[in-house]
Amino acid sequence: MTTGVRIERDSLGALAVPASALWGVHTERAILNFPISGIPLGKHRHLVRALAYVKKAAALTNTELGLIPDDVGQAVASACDIVAAGDVDDAFRVDVIQGGAGTSSNMNANEVIANLALQTMGNPLGSYDVVDPIAHVNKCQSTNDVYPTAVRLALVFALDELLDRLGRLSNAFAERGKAFDSIPKIGRTQLQDAVPMTLGQEFKAFSVTINEDQRLLRGAAVLLTECSLGATAIGTGITADSGYIERIVDNLSAVSGVSLSKPEDLIEATWDTGAFMTFSGALKRTAIKLSKICNDLRLLSSGPQTGLAEIKLPARQAGSSIMPGKVNPVIPEVVNQIAFFVAGADTTVTMAAENGQLQLNAFEPAIAHALLESMSWLSNGCDVLTELCVNGIEANEELLRTRARSSTAQATALLPILGYNLAAEVAHRALGSGQSVVEIALGDGWLSQEQVDSLSQTP
Amino acid sequence: MTTGVRIERDSLGALAVPASALWGVHTERAILNFPISGIPLGKHRHLVRALAYVKKAAALTNTELGLIPDDVGQAVASACDIVAAGDVDDAFRVDVIQGGAGTSSNMNANEVIANLALQTMGNPLGSYDVVDPIAHVNKCQSTNDVYPTAVRLALVFALDELLDRLGRLSNAFAERGKAFDSIPKIGRTQLQDAVPMTLGQEFKAFSVTINEDQRLLRGAAVLLTECSLGATAIGTGITADSGYIERIVDNLSAVSGVSLSKPEDLIEATWDTGAFMTFSGALKRTAIKLSKICNDLRLLSSGPQTGLAEIKLPARQAGSSIMPGKVNPVIPEVVNQIAFFVAGADTTVTMAAENGQLQLNAFEPAIAHALLESMSWLSNGCDVLTELCVNGIEANEELLRTRARSSTAQATALLPILGYNLAAEVAHRALGSGQSVVEIALGDGWLSQEQVDSLSQTP
Amino acid sequence: MTTGVRIERDSLGALAVPASALWGVHTERAILNFPISGIPLGKHRHLVRALAYVKKAAALTNTELGLIPDDVGQAVASACDIVAAGDVDDAFRVDVIQGGAGTSSNMNANEVIANLALQTMGNPLGSYDVVDPIAHVNKCQSTNDVYPTAVRLALVFALDELLDRLGRLSNAFAERGKAFDSIPKIGRTQLQDAVPMTLGQEFKAFSVTINEDQRLLRGAAVLLTECSLGATAIGTGITADSGYIERIVDNLSAVSGVSLSKPEDLIEATWDTGAFMTFSGALKRTAIKLSKICNDLRLLSSGPQTGLAEIKLPARQAGSSIMPGKVNPVIPEVVNQIAFFVAGADTTVTMAAENGQLQLNAFEPAIAHALLESMSWLSNGCDVLTELCVNGIEANEELLRTRARSSTAQATALLPILGYNLAAEVAHRALGSGQSVVEIALGDGWLSQEQVDSLSQTP
Amino acid sequence: MTTGVRIERDSLGALAVPASALWGVHTERAILNFPISGIPLGKHRHLVRALAYVKKAAALTNTELGLIPDDVGQAVASACDIVAAGDVDDAFRVDVIQGGAGTSSNMNANEVIANLALQTMGNPLGSYDVVDPIAHVNKCQSTNDVYPTAVRLALVFALDELLDRLGRLSNAFAERGKAFDSIPKIGRTQLQDAVPMTLGQEFKAFSVTINEDQRLLRGAAVLLTECSLGATAIGTGITADSGYIERIVDNLSAVSGVSLSKPEDLIEATWDTGAFMTFSGALKRTAIKLSKICNDLRLLSSGPQTGLAEIKLPARQAGSSIMPGKVNPVIPEVVNQIAFFVAGADTTVTMAAENGQLQLNAFEPAIAHALLESMSWLSNGCDVLTELCVNGIEANEELLRTRARSSTAQATALLPILGYNLAAEVAHRALGSGQSVVEIALGDGWLSQEQVDSLSQTP
Repeated sequence: MTTGVRIERDSLGALAVPASALWGVHTERAILNFPISGIPLGKHRHLVRALAYVKKAAALTNTELGLIPDDVGQAVASACDIVAAGDVDDAFRVDVIQGGAGTSSNMNANEVIANLALQTMGNPLGSYDVVDPIAHVNKCQSTNDVYPTAVRLALVFALDELLDRLGRLSNAFAERGKAFDSIPKIGRTQLQDAVPMTLGQEFKAFSVTINEDQRLLRGAAVLLTECSLGATAIGTGITADSGYIERIVDNLSAVSGVSLSKPEDLIEATWDTGAFMTFSGALKRTAIKLSKICNDLRLLSSGPQTGLAEIKLPARQAGSSIMPGKVNPVIPEVVNQIAFFVAGADTTVTMAAENGQLQLNAFEPAIAHALLESMSWLSNGCDVLTELCVNGIEANEELLRTRARSSTAQATALLPILGYNLAAEVAHRALGSGQSVVEIALGDGWLSQEQVDSLSQTP
Repeated sequence: MTTGVRIERDSLGALAVPASALWGVHTERAILNFPISGIPLGKHRHLVRALAYVKKAAALTNTELGLIPDDVGQAVASACDIVAAGDVDDAFRVDVIQGGAGTSSNMNANEVIANLALQTMGNPLGSYDVVDPIAHVNKCQSTNDVYPTAVRLALVFALDELLDRLGRLSNAFAERGKAFDSIPKIGRTQLQDAVPMTLGQEFKAFSVTINEDQRLLRGAAVLLTECSLGATAIGTGITADSGYIERIVDNLSAVSGVSLSKPEDLIEATWDTGAFMTFSGALKRTAIKLSKICNDLRLLSSGPQTGLAEIKLPARQAGSSIMPGKVNPVIPEVVNQIAFFVAGADTTVTMAAENGQLQLNAFEPAIAHALLESMSWLSNGCDVLTELCVNGIEANEELLRTRARSSTAQATALLPILGYNLAAEVAHRALGSGQSVVEIALGDGWLSQEQVDSLSQTP
Repeated sequence: MTTGVRIERDSLGALAVPASALWGVHTERAILNFPISGIPLGKHRHLVRALAYVKKAAALTNTELGLIPDDVGQAVASACDIVAAGDVDDAFRVDVIQGGAGTSSNMNANEVIANLALQTMGNPLGSYDVVDPIAHVNKCQSTNDVYPTAVRLALVFALDELLDRLGRLSNAFAERGKAFDSIPKIGRTQLQDAVPMTLGQEFKAFSVTINEDQRLLRGAAVLLTECSLGATAIGTGITADSGYIERIVDNLSAVSGVSLSKPEDLIEATWDTGAFMTFSGALKRTAIKLSKICNDLRLLSSGPQTGLAEIKLPARQAGSSIMPGKVNPVIPEVVNQIAFFVAGADTTVTMAAENGQLQLNAFEPAIAHALLESMSWLSNGCDVLTELCVNGIEANEELLRTRARSSTAQATALLPILGYNLAAEVAHRALGSGQSVVEIALGDGWLSQEQVDSLSQTP
Repeated sequence: MTTGVRIERDSLGALAVPASALWGVHTERAILNFPISGIPLGKHRHLVRALAYVKKAAALTNTELGLIPDDVGQAVASACDIVAAGDVDDAFRVDVIQGGAGTSSNMNANEVIANLALQTMGNPLGSYDVVDPIAHVNKCQSTNDVYPTAVRLALVFALDELLDRLGRLSNAFAERGKAFDSIPKIGRTQLQDAVPMTLGQEFKAFSVTINEDQRLLRGAAVLLTECSLGATAIGTGITADSGYIERIVDNLSAVSGVSLSKPEDLIEATWDTGAFMTFSGALKRTAIKLSKICNDLRLLSSGPQTGLAEIKLPARQAGSSIMPGKVNPVIPEVVNQIAFFVAGADTTVTMAAENGQLQLNAFEPAIAHALLESMSWLSNGCDVLTELCVNGIEANEELLRTRARSSTAQATALLPILGYNLAAEVAHRALGSGQSVVEIALGDGWLSQEQVDSLSQTP
């Protein structure tokens, strides 16, 4: 044996792996086959953790049923704990973009866990006669049930994080909504002055809409908790012990802390990627909402002299290398861009889903990366938007009050009293005069002072 | 006045409309402004019906509250019934692709209903001093609450139709699943022979997956039953009577037969297009599923001599102008294409949603057309797929049985007994020999006859 | 025979068609098979015309070579002229969304042309022993070379129209650019006030960018002039006479007036949809540019009191049913929406292209409809944008001049003289004071009057 | 000063940066503002190199014109060489996903180059009074001309690599085409047996289509060589010396080795992202072509027993953890997935382009990352497809010959002799009999032996 490597074998022959590597021959071949993105599986923390939980649940189940030796089962379960904790993420080396429907990710997990178990037991790396990546770690499993299950769990874990960040963002908007509660402004439809509202109402609506997206994300995630373990290759359960099939979903629920259910039809569950599409759609919806909100923040803070100038975003960095004093809305801008990537990811997911064939969709690694990256970026985007922008937004209150008073948009409020044509005439006269709509209507006797007073209750 | 026309006026001045036209000056301007698609609003039957219900509910509410005269209210309500029934669809002339956030669609409805009411009352068309499109028909409303509400209702109506068609398609697949229940075949993953299953399992899974999509569509539609009537221009309810705001949603529920609820925040509800995004995502998911299924049907029926040739689709038309006897899978192909359009529509909806600004999204007409066209095409696609294809699918049973017997894919079933390496060797020897995997394993003494018999229980 | 119908036969059996129908059994079956969009082939005028040219060129070539009788050839050519002229568009009844890779469109053309030829020769409809849709009209052809060729030609025809409309739009912007040539304004980057420019520069840039898109569309269209006629079913030329293969492309060039070339490899040309993708990309680019321009027009005309209010768009219709005097940017809004549909069509084209298999892409009918509808809508959008909006745009010149004078954005111009820090300080002091940047710098002695004069040369 | 840090200042105040950092305060703020993707700018080697070239060309131009001191100019130019060589990529720390339209990327370059220049001159890091990131390194420039120029150059560099890989892939297909030149097979349209061809023709077509994509990518890249340097903030050239404006483009051509041209209109060039859209479209087209080819490779190699089984892909890894002997088409599968990401990137680019406002598109960082990542993945995908798949593809020649002989698809070749109906009858009889179409036609006297011999010339 060459110094520094050990030789492993699979059905294609022998291959050297680094002597100290926790991974083995299947992983090594995959590293050589997929030098695509340079992003190793280990970067997707949630996915590595999820793989560890699946393998632990399987090991416990197989041990319970006597399908693998007790000591092997215990060593494997301990190894899974190490993997779940994130201590060996750098042994998850296969590229996140990989052919083979996730086989390489599954085998990377099988091999790392087998070798960790061997270490625990005091055996040399690679002594698979004691703990075998396939015969023991992958017992009663197939990539085709393990990998989708792990991806689903990973998305559930990532969602916890995202919901937390969305919650804080929503709170920040709600808080600004309260702070701006009494500041009147002119609402706009189609970018044209419309009718009065308050700045607080505008910000509260941002909070409300994010809350709704949180609910929808949670709803979409329910589909992710269907777990096809026991299906093995195509849903018929071939090679899996019947006791295993019966217990594995409950055992994974216990190990992962996520309440999982069995699909109605394991054949369908094995090829179907509908849950990923639904979840991708929910992520896209959330992202597009955030983009819309950021568009509004950028519009409302446009200026300082020739824009809408209703609010001031906190300055985060000098805006220009040549325009002195210029400050740009860089935080909303970065969130807009995250949204464009999430929409792009939905295209990727859609095409991957559409290209599934017969009993399996071979393109789940693409789906997994697209969704996990989207969630990570969205979470980060929520954070910076909350901390570096929304929390520090200030209103140009005086300007808003002045504008609200002089706006012809007040004419709509007179509609029930004056009718459309007269209200339009008053508005037309106010525009360009120094007087407000109410002053003109009052001056001409169209309105009484009592009516004026009652109007001022709204908005 | 020129013969054959009548002159109407709005804030931009006078304009001639055909003397017998049910529509008026606002519609006429919109016809001139938007010669885009050539598809008139009246083509969207569900949307016209929905507009009629909104207007009827408003008229009843305004009459109850004494906000419009009783006789006017009754005439307007009767006019709405005529519109809802589909008798005057050709008076809905504005292009479905229109600027103005739906104002032209709303005004087309207001004008047609006012003129129908005038006819009912024995008045000449255009005598708006008696029944006014704005002061009476649009009373307490704004385009910005009427149009989104009508679009939502229209989608709910269209969904009834789509669910019915999906249900029939699912049943057809379930029926084929039963008919093919006992026909063995080799399942494929990544297009490579994998493990045994039955053709019935494959078809049943199509049924199961369509059922799941039906559930998700129903779930997505719940969001559509939030009704923002009473919000008027931007959600503050300006110009709307408080009694009206209180009653209108219940009244529309009664008129439309759809159980509607009030949104949490009317400001948010006025600009938010999230419900449309969610619904578009659900439609896309359904369409992509159908495309996947049709891909499978085309693959499974490929041949007749050099393809998979597992099933035969019913011949619907001569397949080629130059290849005698060729029959093509034209029905699945048309459904694939519908799916590509539905995916395209989701892009359209996404961009329209993302471009909303401040208190309104001006691009809802694009969203409405994209979704209503998608649903119509999907419904039609389900119908032809059911009637002209799935119902007549036959299995090449003999070929499937022969293949299943001789397939090395049987080797996986031996895995629990033989282990991976020995099973692989047996499979390798079987491939290219005339013998089956089981025969070789039996002949070599790796398996007993009892073991063979127990294996054959699995599909 | 039932009154009012005639019976025709194909390989699937007999079928009744209306006695007076120009179409025959293949078309009739397709009508029954594809009740999808309700949009008949005849709506795509450019495509019907293109099919007629292909059939005429083939008839002339076959006649030259003695492959069909002279009188049949002449009658067919005359029939093609009638079809090309648009006189029988309503006989093109198959749905634009169809399976079969365009076979039904090709057969619809073959049957209509055969029957028109029969009429010309004084024969009853359906007497195909004299003029046969396949043996004569489709001689030496296959759907797989006819249909793609016709779609390409149709796009070239549609492009002529679109380029003309884009040209007029570009001219309108150029003309406004000249009219606004001397009006100063503050340019904005990231929606924040940046540095001075003129309104004329802004409008001229719209013209320049549209000109560039015209060039790119023309470039993309070159790919469409590759003509695969002679390839027949899969590119091997099977069933086509060698003389026909040699002459048909030149003959179609002559008939259509479009200079066509032969592809490098007919096998590749038969399945490749790259030219459609490239063309779709060019359309999308143009549409997105128009959307960006319309976004700017809407921003610049926002107001009238609380927006940017730099320009006024001509009022095209009353903007609101409840906001008196409100006028909305309805024309730019409709163009935005067209762009969203064109982007959606690109998704459709992409998925259709990606799903092509082996020797043919069966999804060209989807591609054809997506692109032809996009072009029609874009052409119409350009027209209304030019006529109903751009031509009538006016500047708020006084406001712009006032703002330009008082803007701290002038500080950047002082950068080469004052340096970044001092310029920033001056800008900071100007903001909020009544004085301009130049006045402060002059007053404090940082600038001489000569330097001020030299600065004012730049816009 | 805290040990290990140095304090720098900008218009927002003081901030600590690591004492040994080559970057400064602007970069440090950006690091804090944009913790989004975790992918630092330095990962985009081509972009860092391009930034270095821009800065070097500017330094040389400014030195020539006496706008910066000679020694500073020389030190900056030397620093740019170090950056271009890739020696300090890890000092490019700002996240690739950033707000601010690229300002942070530009400032990261300015600061690293200034500090490298200071090191060269023997000055401490941060002594910007000697070499200033803005006053010297960024002299006569703005982010708004520097960043887009650098992104364009980076894409041109990345394209060299991609074209090289595509070229090798095309050659590999051409070589396989020659190797399979004489192997007959039945071509398929719509997955149904169509007419004869050779396997060599099929593979040659893959080569031809990739060659065409290379030409189109080169054509699309021409737009990228328009260089807006000299435009500064919005295209008016404000703060740039007129001599600089005149010379900078030529100087950058010389420094970069890429022949660059000046845009027609600098205002337009500053906000326009059309070139990126066109380039993204060309990348998507290439990716979709590769996906189509990979779909075909997977179809043609499906089996081994129940698929098309026309070719064998080289085995790259064990295909399954439970199916002994299974080998999957993992390399084509990974290329499919790359294509789905490239299509997703095009969505991202489209939305970023559409959201540009007024004088600048703030979303170019998203465009840059989407395109550079796409190109990197595509290049890697071409490599593995060439080396690990195409080069080792083998034909199942015997099977193909047997199938070709017995196929009823031969009937089409008889069409010119037998006519459609008779040919169809012969085909129908052959299907299911043991005899070939030719044997039946010969036996029944429909064909002479001479006719049979002449037919066999065609593939």
